[in-house]
Amino acid sequence: MPVNVLFAAKPSNWVAQEEPLKDAFKTAGLNVNLAAFQDGTMAPEDVDYMIWSPASAVQDFTPYTRCKAVLSLWAGVERVIGNKTLTQPLCRMVDRGLEEGMVEWVCGHVMRHHLGMDAQILGQNGEWKPHLPPLARNRKVTVLGLGALGSACARMLNAFGFDVAGWSRRQKDLDGITCFSGPDGLQKVLKRSEIVVLLLPNTPETENTLNAQTLSLMPKGAFIINPGRGPLIDDDALLDALNTGQIAHATLDVFRIEPLPGTHPYWTHPNVTVTPHMAADTRLDSSSQVIAENIRRGENGEDFLHLADRTTGY
Amino acid sequence: MPVNVLFAAKPSNWVAQEEPLKDAFKTAGLNVNLAAFQDGTMAPEDVDYMIWSPASAVQDFTPYTRCKAVLSLWAGVERVIGNKTLTQPLCRMVDRGLEEGMVEWVCGHVMRHHLGMDAQILGQNGEWKPHLPPLARNRKVTVLGLGALGSACARMLNAFGFDVAGWSRRQKDLDGITCFSGPDGLQKVLKRSEIVVLLLPNTPETENTLNAQTLSLMPKGAFIINPGRGPLIDDDALLDALNTGQIAHATLDVFRIEPLPGTHPYWTHPNVTVTPHMAADTRLDSSSQVIAENIRRGENGEDFLHLADRTTGY
Repeated sequence: MPVNVLFAAKPSNWVAQEEPLKDAFKTAGLNVNLAAFQDGTMAPEDVDYMIWSPASAVQDFTPYTRCKAVLSLWAGVERVIGNKTLTQPLCRMVDRGLEEGMVEWVCGHVMRHHLGMDAQILGQNGEWKPHLPPLARNRKVTVLGLGALGSACARMLNAFGFDVAGWSRRQKDLDGITCFSGPDGLQKVLKRSEIVVLLLPNTPETENTLNAQTLSLMPKGAFIINPGRGPLIDDDALLDALNTGQIAHATLDVFRIEPLPGTHPYWTHPNVTVTPHMAADTRLDSSSQVIAENIRRGENGEDFLHLADRTTGY
Repeated sequence: MPVNVLFAAKPSNWVAQEEPLKDAFKTAGLNVNLAAFQDGTMAPEDVDYMIWSPASAVQDFTPYTRCKAVLSLWAGVERVIGNKTLTQPLCRMVDRGLEEGMVEWVCGHVMRHHLGMDAQILGQNGEWKPHLPPLARNRKVTVLGLGALGSACARMLNAFGFDVAGWSRRQKDLDGITCFSGPDGLQKVLKRSEIVVLLLPNTPETENTLNAQTLSLMPKGAFIINPGRGPLIDDDALLDALNTGQIAHATLDVFRIEPLPGTHPYWTHPNVTVTPHMAADTRLDSSSQVIAENIRRGENGEDFLHLADRTTGY
């Protein structure tokens, strides 16, 4: 008997993802009947597993009575975890490719600000202006959020030589990283942060983690890098801090509304770089392997990987 | 009896380097009489060791009859190794701080081109243009030159996930790096190089390593990063290759004439980034420690570190 898997993520992604999924199922030795939601060929009550992302047409999970798990293609599940109709187990995507992409984007932009590259990229005016940045070991970088992505970034920044601190809700212990936790820890860690990377989950507790008060704690001329979630930052407070020079520059990949509207002041601010939610995109091959592995586990009565926790919200 | 050490490097560097040198001599347990050339207080025939860089007023080493070693503050010694009056042992600078700075600059600019950052840094026009770069493991990066600096860069790029190849005159063997050598190896490695980093020494053999023929071997749209030496590149050939799009972008830190004259076409070319010879600067504390260690070795009859080889030119 084949396992019925419904692809109910963004319809336009079906074309690109169908083959990688079938390859992954085959490699995992699974006999799968895979259908796209938009084709309407699989009845809700026949679905064993659902592949899902926020752009899905499925927002009411009630008809999926037999569904053993909803498998998110996104790492962040804040748009669905509070959905009262979702009683099935929900698995987040923890994709090696997504993690690699995030580490690359984060380290790249930390290096860019560390080296002061923009002065040269934007300033090719024929003037030879000697410039010697400090070494990475003399640069204090902080990662807020030490989940899978935050820890991976902190570790690579540390391997690179940076003086790395991390902050998380619950105290963590990571080799080579100075770890802080709790509200007091946040105040302390921000005071030493020349470059801050935001990789917190999006929950009511993390909203506006960077606000007028917390931004004022940072050393003058600090840098903000946000590949996490838009609501982690109070946008008006950040714009104020950029205008006074308290914050030298913000590189932002995520926003409260995406795509960021063309009229948003971030676009024209000389000390803001907007990037188009590119830091971490799910990669087709590696994410398909994670989906297949969770279906294999479900069929063998094993625990699912990356099960979301409804009490913490991620 | 104190050891007489003459600081005969760039005179303007004396103020900053005097204290780090004295600290390093003290830590090494050396009894040193240190003088600056410009003060004229140390007779040439009394000098035991000379600290030197290309901007030195000393270009005739004949009067330094007692001098046991000339200790370069620069890693590259091409401006002095052919000097017929230099019969004393010549030591290159191999500075941990210089190496760290080089690795940081190289990895930062490789990441910048890998991620296509300039599109966002230069293109904040309110248009949300989705962009997903490949992962580092699918990006072929090549380091030409596998000396201390080239090897350190290749290793860190590999740790970062890039698919790294290296090329050197003599065959090397580096863990995780695909190593090529010799003229045939150069042709081969360039064919697979999406991003090339030049870290070859400046010798008659390496002049114009990148020329019209070798540039044409690279995949269309490749990137050049030169923190090595200006003469490694045929500038006219590179400008031609940039104009046809064969080379997408060149980030250049070193030039045949420095500072790069304000009228040079590199300054205004939209696909060139000029940086002010900042990739690797000798760091005062760590370089002073290397100088002190070599004087300690000389006084104890031990072999000098980083002795330059007059037959290879570096």
